[in-house]
Amino acid sequence: MRVEVYFTPEEVRAGDLAGATAVVIDVVRATSCIVEAIANGARAVHPAVSVEEATALRATLNGQGHRPLLCGERGGLRIEGFDLGNSPAEFTAAAVGGRRLVMTTTNGTRAFAAARPADRVLAASFFNQTAVADAVREDAAVAIVCAGKEGRFSLDDAVCAGHIVRALQDRSATPVTLADGAAAVRDLAAVHDVSAGMLAGTAAGQALVEVGLGGDLALCARADRHQIIPMMYDRVITAPRR
Amino acid sequence: MRVEVYFTPEEVRAGDLAGATAVVIDVVRATSCIVEAIANGARAVHPAVSVEEATALRATLNGQGHRPLLCGERGGLRIEGFDLGNSPAEFTAAAVGGRRLVMTTTNGTRAFAAARPADRVLAASFFNQTAVADAVREDAAVAIVCAGKEGRFSLDDAVCAGHIVRALQDRSATPVTLADGAAAVRDLAAVHDVSAGMLAGTAAGQALVEVGLGGDLALCARADRHQIIPMMYDRVITAPRR
Repeated sequence: MRVEVYFTPEEVRAGDLAGATAVVIDVVRATSCIVEAIANGARAVHPAVSVEEATALRATLNGQGHRPLLCGERGGLRIEGFDLGNSPAEFTAAAVGGRRLVMTTTNGTRAFAAARPADRVLAASFFNQTAVADAVREDAAVAIVCAGKEGRFSLDDAVCAGHIVRALQDRSATPVTLADGAAAVRDLAAVHDVSAGMLAGTAAGQALVEVGLGGDLALCARADRHQIIPMMYDRVITAPRR
Repeated sequence: MRVEVYFTPEEVRAGDLAGATAVVIDVVRATSCIVEAIANGARAVHPAVSVEEATALRATLNGQGHRPLLCGERGGLRIEGFDLGNSPAEFTAAAVGGRRLVMTTTNGTRAFAAARPADRVLAASFFNQTAVADAVREDAAVAIVCAGKEGRFSLDDAVCAGHIVRALQDRSATPVTLADGAAAVRDLAAVHDVSAGMLAGTAAGQALVEVGLGGDLALCARADRHQIIPMMYDRVITAPRR
């Protein structure tokens, strides 16, 4: 198995992901919300890069009789007129069970767009990191695509990627070859615990504290609270198909 | 002092470097060559992004009576018709003393181009990492721009950046605030020694071994062999002006 880590969607070049399984990570907070939503019974998450794309997608889904919820943030805060923001705590079974969600976030949805050329695309966060490693441990090529923060390296995503790399080293049936980025996150996961304090020290965590949403960090840091692995099929994220 | 680390030139956005000192790193091998050349008496290094720009620049400098040397690599190897390749061992006092060099490399020269908007632009490698930290320790904003490898994160550059960050933490007169990338390289420098073996484990080092130039790695890993800090003024790199 060969493992690559991309620190931003922009690092992914055309052709890089052919034949690979892509694992998309946006700990604070898009993939934490997606894992939480699918675990709590949401039927599907439709990522949209822009607010305009999200509202158009809602109209299309409404036309199909789906009554989707609009979710997402800009500057960390719920978008005006949207049903939900981007706090994992909002994605309860009562709120999202059986519903389709259209979601647009600053960084996470761009990472899903970059991951599309991969053979399979999975969503990971601290919530399901060990389950994700189990799900990809027999694959020949794993490409972890971190959402980053506005085109820059993001430490929270890197630490989560590192925990997945370390779990793969424990679980892979074949020797694990680490590209430079994968070797780096392996080392970062060894020195950074998974905690609200760690997240509060990152740029993404600080930005959340500054808009009054620092309370989300303790939830985002809850490792392995779910076993579900949301998968993207043709631009729609759902529970894995059997 | 605030320290940012960019893992690729592409991560640098317009306006990011205004007011900052930029430190450009391409351990394997552009900035190792530049530090070696300036330490050995080269009058100036003119970075050129393309082979075409390099040959045009040589013609201009020839017209000014300078007799520059053409240096650089593609795929690690000396470019056909060029005077020197990109092995630091080539940049001896006998070869480069008193001469101007026009240099084009795959990644390094793009990093210098990205760093241009900074207030000052310095060249760093393991050769002069501690001297560079001393030179910038009173600055308010330091932006370390890693050349990376073809738009991707490169572990060798990150480890060198980390040693500079750690030296800054020891030497800065003011508290040092680390952005996410700077915190990450600080941790990577703690677990990776500076050695030919470490470099051989990186993508850049492996590529060099594959083209038969693995012998360069032992030289590139010689920490603090020079005190000189090459500086870029108006697209030309020289010894610091007094």
